[in-house]
Formats: sequence, C-alpha cells, structure tokens
Amino acid sequence: MSEDEPIGVMTTDECWDMLRANEFGRLAFHLAGEVHLTPINYAVDHDTLLFRTAEGSKLLGVEMNPDVAFEIDEFDEHHARSVVLRGVARHLGEDEEHRAENVPLRPWVPTLKYDVVEIRPTEISGRQFELSRPWLHIIPGR
Amino acid sequence: MSEDEPIGVMTTDECWDMLRANEFGRLAFHLAGEVHLTPINYAVDHDTLLFRTAEGSKLLGVEMNPDVAFEIDEFDEHHARSVVLRGVARHLGEDEEHRAENVPLRPWVPTLKYDVVEIRPTEISGRQFELSRPWLHIIPGR
Repeated sequence: MSEDEPIGVMTTDECWDMLRANEFGRLAFHLAGEVHLTPINYAVDHDTLLFRTAEGSKLLGVEMNPDVAFEIDEFDEHHARSVVLRGVARHLGEDEEHRAENVPLRPWVPTLKYDVVEIRPTEISGRQFELSRPWLHIIPGR
Repeated sequence: MSEDEPIGVMTTDECWDMLRANEFGRLAFHLAGEVHLTPINYAVDHDTLLFRTAEGSKLLGVEMNPDVAFEIDEFDEHHARSVVLRGVARHLGEDEEHRAENVPLRPWVPTLKYDVVEIRPTEISGRQFELSRPWLHIIPGR
C-alpha cells in the first residue's frame, strides 16, 4: 500500500487472522424493523464466530431476523485496520453449546450469559488505512 | 460502581461528553433489507452527529431508510465504556453543508468525501464495565 493509495484491501486470510487475534467487536442486528448495535465478546470457531448472550434483545432480534453484521477495528497513530462481515446468526441448541467451551470465548464482564449464538459469515471484507492526521503532530510553541 | 456490579449506566451527559471526546465510531444502517456496518469519522454538532461520505452504499442506505445506530467505545486493561445511540439520518442539502465546516470533522484518510449526513439521536445509552480478564494477569513461571 503506497502513500498515494491510503486505502488498502485486506485478503480474506488477513481478515480471519485479525478476527482470531481479537475478542471484542460490535454486532449490528435487526429488531422489529430497527437496526441495533452492541459491543460483544466473541471467539472464532473454525469458519464461524460464537458469542454468548443472556435472554434479551440480541437473542430476540437474531431469532426474528438472522441477518447480522459484525465489525472489529484497531488503530494507532499512523495506521488503521477494520474488518466487517455480514452473516447469518443462529442460536445454538444444547447439543451444540459445547462448541463455546473449546474456543477462547471469555466474557470480559462476569455476568451470567447462557445462550450461545453462531454467526456464519456470508461476506467478509477488510480495509487498511494509512492515517493522515496532521493535528496529532502539531507541536505547541513551534 | 462496585465490584459486585460490573455494569454501570452512564448518564446522558456522560454519553455526550464521550461522543464529543471521540471522532471514530461505527455506523449501522439498512440497505435493501440488510443490516450493514461501517467505521466512520464523525463530529458532534450541537445535539446531532455529522459525518462525510462519498456517493455509495452508506448514502444510498440512509436515503432509502433513515433508521441508523451508532457506537463508540474505549477500553484499557481494567475498564471499558461504550455509548450506543439510535437515530435518524438525513443527507444535508447544500444550504446546510457548512455545518460540517464549523466542527472538528477531520477525515483520517484524505479521500474525497463530499456529502454530509446528520444523525439526530432518538435514544442514547452508555454503559461502563469493570473488566475481569484474569488471563491478562497470568504470570508465566509462577
């Protein structure tokens, strides 16, 4: 990626590497015709993502409409990367919940979260940016 | 917020303070019945958010269905905070585009982005968490 092309496209493998290296993202889902957005902890299980949730709007939303989107990002002073996927969410039955035991699905907050939801991606895209934020480099007094 | 109550609710004023202190978030929007999610740069203008975009799916999406959600978050080793809002997006006409000149709406990537979109929040909520991530404190060899 040259300086003339600040936006670069990540390969699908690079997207999965970044998904495996993270555990915190944001889930967008439908709820009664509205779009909702919430931070979640997740883990990669083979070619899917898993997250845990209690009974509530996330679970209700994806059971009523399984169309979801999910995003992770990371940035420092000079670079940013973002992976976005769209996919199909599915509330796992008791016979599949054990899949969450085999992956590093570690809630950051120790509240009770019983249900396990799988997101099976249908599209994944990742972009990386060279950041141009000159205001970070302004040195007062110079 | 005690250790027994890891989830705390932020006041609306605290949510706006955090919105004003940041410039990078994620926008969820409808597009042809699907939910889409994308990182954006934004700025607060009075009681609204503004962002710039080129002609494309974001602009098409919010013109077809103005129902959107937006999220920012920040975390360190011990704490996390997240503000989520739902609102109504509106593509500003030429007579209102000047509003983007009066706020620190600074694109991180210098691509051409002509159109200005306003998000007028209808609901704002913020949560803060004490993080319990014992795996960060595991000291090898002890």
